[in-house]
Amino acid sequence: MEKNDSSQAYPMNGGDGDSSYTNNSSYQKSLSDVAMSLINEAIADMLDTQNFVRGHPFRIADLGCSVGPNTFTTVKNIINSVQHKYQTLKITPMPEFQVFFNDHATNDFNTLFKTLPADKEYFAAGVPGSFYSRLFPSSSVHVIHSSFALHWLSKVPEEVLERGSIAWNKGRVHYAGSDEEVVLAYKKQYVKDTEAFLKARAEEVVCGGLVVVLVPGRPNEVPHSECIGNVLFEVLGCCLLDMAKEGKIDEEKVDSLNIPIYYASPQELKEIVDRNGCFTIEKMKGLPRIVEPETKDHARRLAIGVRVGVEAVLKGHFEDESIDELFQSFSNRLEEQPSLYSSGGAAILFSVLRRNDK
Amino acid sequence: MEKNDSSQAYPMNGGDGDSSYTNNSSYQKSLSDVAMSLINEAIADMLDTQNFVRGHPFRIADLGCSVGPNTFTTVKNIINSVQHKYQTLKITPMPEFQVFFNDHATNDFNTLFKTLPADKEYFAAGVPGSFYSRLFPSSSVHVIHSSFALHWLSKVPEEVLERGSIAWNKGRVHYAGSDEEVVLAYKKQYVKDTEAFLKARAEEVVCGGLVVVLVPGRPNEVPHSECIGNVLFEVLGCCLLDMAKEGKIDEEKVDSLNIPIYYASPQELKEIVDRNGCFTIEKMKGLPRIVEPETKDHARRLAIGVRVGVEAVLKGHFEDESIDELFQSFSNRLEEQPSLYSSGGAAILFSVLRRNDK
Repeated sequence: MEKNDSSQAYPMNGGDGDSSYTNNSSYQKSLSDVAMSLINEAIADMLDTQNFVRGHPFRIADLGCSVGPNTFTTVKNIINSVQHKYQTLKITPMPEFQVFFNDHATNDFNTLFKTLPADKEYFAAGVPGSFYSRLFPSSSVHVIHSSFALHWLSKVPEEVLERGSIAWNKGRVHYAGSDEEVVLAYKKQYVKDTEAFLKARAEEVVCGGLVVVLVPGRPNEVPHSECIGNVLFEVLGCCLLDMAKEGKIDEEKVDSLNIPIYYASPQELKEIVDRNGCFTIEKMKGLPRIVEPETKDHARRLAIGVRVGVEAVLKGHFEDESIDELFQSFSNRLEEQPSLYSSGGAAILFSVLRRNDK
Repeated sequence: MEKNDSSQAYPMNGGDGDSSYTNNSSYQKSLSDVAMSLINEAIADMLDTQNFVRGHPFRIADLGCSVGPNTFTTVKNIINSVQHKYQTLKITPMPEFQVFFNDHATNDFNTLFKTLPADKEYFAAGVPGSFYSRLFPSSSVHVIHSSFALHWLSKVPEEVLERGSIAWNKGRVHYAGSDEEVVLAYKKQYVKDTEAFLKARAEEVVCGGLVVVLVPGRPNEVPHSECIGNVLFEVLGCCLLDMAKEGKIDEEKVDSLNIPIYYASPQELKEIVDRNGCFTIEKMKGLPRIVEPETKDHARRLAIGVRVGVEAVLKGHFEDESIDELFQSFSNRLEEQPSLYSSGGAAILFSVLRRNDK
């Protein structure tokens, strides 16, 4: 059996403080709302219940669930959709539901468990471990969902950390403005990770079951350098370099910091799914970008959103005070130059994959 | 669906500090070692795999698992026993194993998950909630184990807290030296809880599957007042009353403290299992008491053991300093009077119940 959690873990900020994920996940939430109706449609039209054993429990997993509350809303929506489908098809009895909340072992499961909805209509379980390895027994899960998690690579590609390698990513924290070799190293890691993800899910999902993935990415025609996520990390890297020039942080620490996130295009994902061969792509589409006004308030919220996402990565490299200063300067720059974040190409990629017959 | 966690939760001390469960569960461990061979025997001789679906995952649950490491050892032992049985019976393919670690939502699941054995040969999941309600889908678990947990009642019986009730337990923290009405109130709660436990497990366990329970209790012929657990709580109550007399704590707080633990006899448990009707009692026996020398060191370890178990209950009533002083005086008293703990009747009750055909 593969070791479950060999990949690096960068949990969202736990607890419920000012910069916690719980209190700063509204961006994810509004997008999830858009995704809700797409999930309903997927379950209504694409989930194939034909081979599901009547009377057996219906199992759902949310991979990279963090600490809620979004995962609870999503899960409830999925269950409602399944119940609606079963009622429409007059399938009886209505199954019992078991829900697996997955994230890295370093995720704050204590908070997740304490905040489970009191009126939940399912049996809940937490599953610690990287979703780039096996998490569940074979053919035991009917719907797997993952939202805003699969853009995280299992680790920083080794080459970009190697001084002397042609892919050494000196002076940058991400790949968009880097040499082609760095971009390639990131892409190779993404392909390897996504292959591992699909291989594991192909084992776990029953025939006719679905894998529904919502992930930030970029449109096929948009180059990395214009993708909004990449632009933001480029700005963050510039802020860090400025701090290094001012002697506030060690430049070598900037060199050794690489954010293990990759923004894939639908085409890139499609090629990997096709190569895997176990899934039919039922849907793969970009969600419309929510255009926000170029206000200072929005810039600040965007900065906080980025901080919530990547703070765990930064904590291994810099003191808390440096991180505070970094995000202050990052926020200021976004406020001064709203074009940085309002013009870049962005895509939220929504995919529905159905497990083929085995 | 029933609310999962309506009962009171008194988690073992988490983390890995001096008075943590992790570092003070050696008593449980040595008994578990004795229980190991009995579990092996139960799985070899009493688990009926006839109706288990070949190729489906084999599911195991440990109820009241706390934070390890004992739960990991127990689970590994169960899996080895099952594998051995399948090999002996030449049943193929060997199933994959999924293990559910259950405890109250206030249990330290974060520690549990971070310390999962790296070489574990199963898919792990944590399940938060009281085992006096449903935790798993119907007919989905093959072996349920619970060690040193079922003597905890779901709550303090209401009558013993009611000033004016004939069962009001004034001046005591447990029932052994109390009026008959108090003992009866505790017993009624025990019966109600155990009925709820068996009702839930009867739904969850597949036909032929086992419920294995290890729990401190008392031999049929031993009265409550001579059972070692009761004796210890009686001494603890006396120490508290002394502190109240010295004005160090409020006497009313002693009145309102009742430890929700009941030490049942095999006969009491047997009657409830028989009334439930869904299980065959394959084994119900007392384990031999491990006789420890009457040394100061043993007295101190015993005092720490009691503290680890009930500290969470005391924390709602007294300041930390009072609790420190209480256990110092408790430990002193045990050191001075070893006969208190070396003569009392004690029994660890080991039961194996098999789910009948439905």
